[in-house]
Amino acid sequence: MNNTKTLITYQERIENILADTLSVYASTSPLYDAMCYSILGGGKRIRPVLMYTIANAANIPYHHIDKAACAIELLHGYTLIHDDLPAMDDDDLRRGKPSCHIQFGEAEAILAGDALQALAFQVLAAPQQHYGPIAQLAMLQYLTEVAGPRGIIAGQARDLAAEGKPLTLSQIDQIHQEKTASLFEACVALTAYAGNLSPDLSQLGRTLGRAFQLQDDLLEQQESTTILGKSCQSDQRLQKATHAGLIGKAAAEQHLEMLYSQAIEIAEQRLPQPAPLITWIRALATRRY
Amino acid sequence: MNNTKTLITYQERIENILADTLSVYASTSPLYDAMCYSILGGGKRIRPVLMYTIANAANIPYHHIDKAACAIELLHGYTLIHDDLPAMDDDDLRRGKPSCHIQFGEAEAILAGDALQALAFQVLAAPQQHYGPIAQLAMLQYLTEVAGPRGIIAGQARDLAAEGKPLTLSQIDQIHQEKTASLFEACVALTAYAGNLSPDLSQLGRTLGRAFQLQDDLLEQQESTTILGKSCQSDQRLQKATHAGLIGKAAAEQHLEMLYSQAIEIAEQRLPQPAPLITWIRALATRRY
Repeated sequence: MNNTKTLITYQERIENILADTLSVYASTSPLYDAMCYSILGGGKRIRPVLMYTIANAANIPYHHIDKAACAIELLHGYTLIHDDLPAMDDDDLRRGKPSCHIQFGEAEAILAGDALQALAFQVLAAPQQHYGPIAQLAMLQYLTEVAGPRGIIAGQARDLAAEGKPLTLSQIDQIHQEKTASLFEACVALTAYAGNLSPDLSQLGRTLGRAFQLQDDLLEQQESTTILGKSCQSDQRLQKATHAGLIGKAAAEQHLEMLYSQAIEIAEQRLPQPAPLITWIRALATRRY
Repeated sequence: MNNTKTLITYQERIENILADTLSVYASTSPLYDAMCYSILGGGKRIRPVLMYTIANAANIPYHHIDKAACAIELLHGYTLIHDDLPAMDDDDLRRGKPSCHIQFGEAEAILAGDALQALAFQVLAAPQQHYGPIAQLAMLQYLTEVAGPRGIIAGQARDLAAEGKPLTLSQIDQIHQEKTASLFEACVALTAYAGNLSPDLSQLGRTLGRAFQLQDDLLEQQESTTILGKSCQSDQRLQKATHAGLIGKAAAEQHLEMLYSQAIEIAEQRLPQPAPLITWIRALATRRY
C-alpha cells in the first residue's frame, strides 16, 4: 500500500470512530449537530495519523489505539471551537466553512466545546480490553494534564496575552510547546502506553509538534485563505510575535528543517519499522496548508 | 460537635484541598489568578458538604473522598464561570463579587473554565491508595459522562434554548435533572464508589438535586441580590419557564417539600448513621439563599 492510500485509510478509520462515538448522542444531546459539524468531515487528522503511523512502526495493532486517537481528536476539536470564539482569535472560518459559533451561535459553540472535552476523557475512561487499568489511568493522567492549567490552555492564554507585544524566542517556544507540542507529545505518549513502549518516545511528539507550529506560522504569513481553509494572516492581524518576525524567514525555515530532521532521527533510532513514519514526516515537512 | 460546626469543618476541609490543588499552578499557569478567584473563598460548598455528610453517615473516612469532592467542586466551579458569560446567562455577579469574565475578561474566563474542567478529571485520575484502579476508572466514567454531551452541558443548552418559550413540566424537570441533579447524583455515586456502597444510593443525590434546583428557582423569584450574592430575578429577566410559573407558587412549594421528604426517607432507609445527614437536609430545605 502506498503512502497516500495508507494516509486515507487512517483518516477514514478515525472519521468512522468519531462518527460512531458521536452517534450515541443523536437523539439525546441538544449539542449533537454542533458537535458533528465541528468534528466530522474535515481536518487533516494529523494527530490520529501520527498515532496510527507510530503504531505501524512499532507493531501495535491499530484497534489498541483507536480510543486514544479518538480522545485526542475530540480534545483537539474542542480547542479549535473555543479558539475561534470572538473573545479569543475571532476566526469566522475553520476547515473551509463557517466556524462553529458563526453556524450555531456563541453559547452553543462554548457548550459544544465543553461537552467535547468531557467526551474526550469519557472515551479514554470507558471499558476496553487492550491494556490494563493502570495503563488506562496513566493515559488519563497524561491527557488531563495536557488539557489542564499548564498545557494547551496555558499556551492559548499566553498567546492571547502576548498580542501586540514583543516576545523573546524562548517565550515563543514556550507558547508553541504548550499550545501545540504538548498535544503531539500526548499522541506519542498515549500510543506508547497502549503499546507498552518507553514513554520517552514522546520526545518525537514534542519535536514534531514544535515543527508543526513553526510551519503553521510560516504558512500563515504566505498562503491564501482558500488554501489554508481558515482566515489567513490572522497572526499578523493580531500582531503575534513569530520566529520569522524575530530571526527572519530564512533562519526560521532553517530551524524548521532542523526540527524535522531531529524527528526523523528519533524515529530511526527508537522504532523497529520506521520507514513509513519517516516518509510521512517528510511529506509533513513539505506541506503547503 | 453540633451541626453548624460540622458544616464549617467540611467547608474548611474542601477549601484547603482546593487551595492545595491550585497552588501547584501558582508560578506555572497564566490562569492561576482567575482560577483561584473563581474557586476559592466563596460558595456554600453544598456538593462537597453532601459528600462528607454521606461519608459520615456511612462510616467512610473523609480522606477517602477528598479527591472526588475536589473534582466535583472544580467541575461545578468551571460550569459557573461559563454559565455567567455574556453569550450564556450574562451574569455580572457571582458569590457576591464580579463574575470571572468581568474581573479577568471573557477570553481568560473561558480558558480558566476549560482548564478547571480538565483539572477536575486530572484530580480523579491521579494516583491514590484508598480504592483500586477499577473503582477509580468507574468514578472517571461516571463524572465524565455527567460533564458530557447529555449531562450538565445539555441542561444548560436546553435552558438557553428555552428562553422566552413555554415549557411543559416534564421539560423543566429534564433541564433540572441534567443541569443540577446529575451532579448531585455524581456526588453520591462517587462517594459510593470510594466507600464501596451500592451505586443505587445515587437516587438520594437525584432527589436532592431536583429539590435544590426547584428551590433555587423559587428563591430567585423572591430574594434580593444582596442575600443571594448573584443577580436576582435573572430567570424572569431571561423569561425562563419555572414550576412556579406553570403550576403556581403554592404547588411548587408543596412539590419541593415532597422532594426533601423523599430524600430524608432514602437516607433513613439506606444509611447506617443517617441522623446528621437528615439534620443537614432539613437545614437545606429551609435555606433562604
